[in-house]
Amino acid sequence: MPNTSMLAAAQPFTTGERDAVYKAIFTRRDVRDQFLPEPIPNDVIRRLLEAAHNAPSVGFMQPWNFITIRNQTVRDRVADAFARANEEAAAMFTGERQSRYKSLKLEGIRKAPLNICVTCDRERGGKVVLGRTHNSSMDLYSTVCAVQNLWLAARAEGIGMGWVSIFRDADLKSILGIPDRIEIVAYLCLGYVDELYERPELEVKGWNRRLPLDDLIFEDRWRGGD
Amino acid sequence: MPNTSMLAAAQPFTTGERDAVYKAIFTRRDVRDQFLPEPIPNDVIRRLLEAAHNAPSVGFMQPWNFITIRNQTVRDRVADAFARANEEAAAMFTGERQSRYKSLKLEGIRKAPLNICVTCDRERGGKVVLGRTHNSSMDLYSTVCAVQNLWLAARAEGIGMGWVSIFRDADLKSILGIPDRIEIVAYLCLGYVDELYERPELEVKGWNRRLPLDDLIFEDRWRGGD
Repeated sequence: MPNTSMLAAAQPFTTGERDAVYKAIFTRRDVRDQFLPEPIPNDVIRRLLEAAHNAPSVGFMQPWNFITIRNQTVRDRVADAFARANEEAAAMFTGERQSRYKSLKLEGIRKAPLNICVTCDRERGGKVVLGRTHNSSMDLYSTVCAVQNLWLAARAEGIGMGWVSIFRDADLKSILGIPDRIEIVAYLCLGYVDELYERPELEVKGWNRRLPLDDLIFEDRWRGGD
Repeated sequence: MPNTSMLAAAQPFTTGERDAVYKAIFTRRDVRDQFLPEPIPNDVIRRLLEAAHNAPSVGFMQPWNFITIRNQTVRDRVADAFARANEEAAAMFTGERQSRYKSLKLEGIRKAPLNICVTCDRERGGKVVLGRTHNSSMDLYSTVCAVQNLWLAARAEGIGMGWVSIFRDADLKSILGIPDRIEIVAYLCLGYVDELYERPELEVKGWNRRLPLDDLIFEDRWRGGD
């Protein structure tokens, strides 16, 4: 039932509002170590999850779930799972790169007072989902949009967030009781921060450099060879 | 070379700034038909792409490219590719659901004055990428974060955006000259809007309902069966 009366006027934001959105985007960091111990109040957590839940989703399937983790024993087990996987990861680098890898702190699982595991239920919309017919990853991508909404909302609340991706899925599923059919998309660490890096931590620490944006933009067609 | 002097104070946003971030998140829509014909100035496109380029990326690999498409012939060919795929998609639904599917407008490829194809170069960081060692999709997920940044920045600029996912990859790659090894993550339609749906269009049009957030949140462990 199309209902055009559901359309409402949509002006551009004021300059102040627009600047605030860009401030969130440009000052957001992947936080691993600056977490303060103060707990995040429930009403703030709720706002962050509402922001995530208002992400776009393919066919409006809203495939996400959010497991909030504050229990210390659970976080200890997750940190152990990270440590095991991170040893495997470090072994994939060699020489100076490996030493540098090992010097980086890549998670705040125990230090951050709140962890959130974000999952994707790929069967939520039934077998055929509007918009997923030709790209089967669209439900995973929707879930990532929810993560990015959560990240920007957290920044606006004075909360830092880090995304930890160095796990064996089976370990996390076992610790958190996640069914096999559910896909883990992100494991997040959150806590208040009173300082953040001015540039991405991996840039500050010399791991990689910022690419010039001009090199990444093409007009009307891919440029260059394959 | 760790350089702690790169840490800067990071207070919470003011209430006004915080509200602006939430306004972008909660009023963002997947736009298919409300595009106005006015071109988007180059400096505004630049701001949108800077926002995308400041997304988090695994190992700071920044795997994305952005093909901006304004050429009418190219957009016509893309629209034809969509139409072919959408016929295949419609055939996957049956009965009343199929009629309803066919009644939905799912793209603004010709109507929106700007299209952007966002891609992921999975080899940009070399074979071993920090943070991608145990989840090979992390570079794709980084690229999705760039799309969501772009979407929220567009909302703040008064620009609507729609994500079109109903294509055969090979068609888009052929039209845009994208090499085989590059993955297409998103095809986006952008244009100024002066009205937007108050709720997601697929909710307004009765395709799916908003799920209660409480049902999607678990504490410390997955709840319920598999």
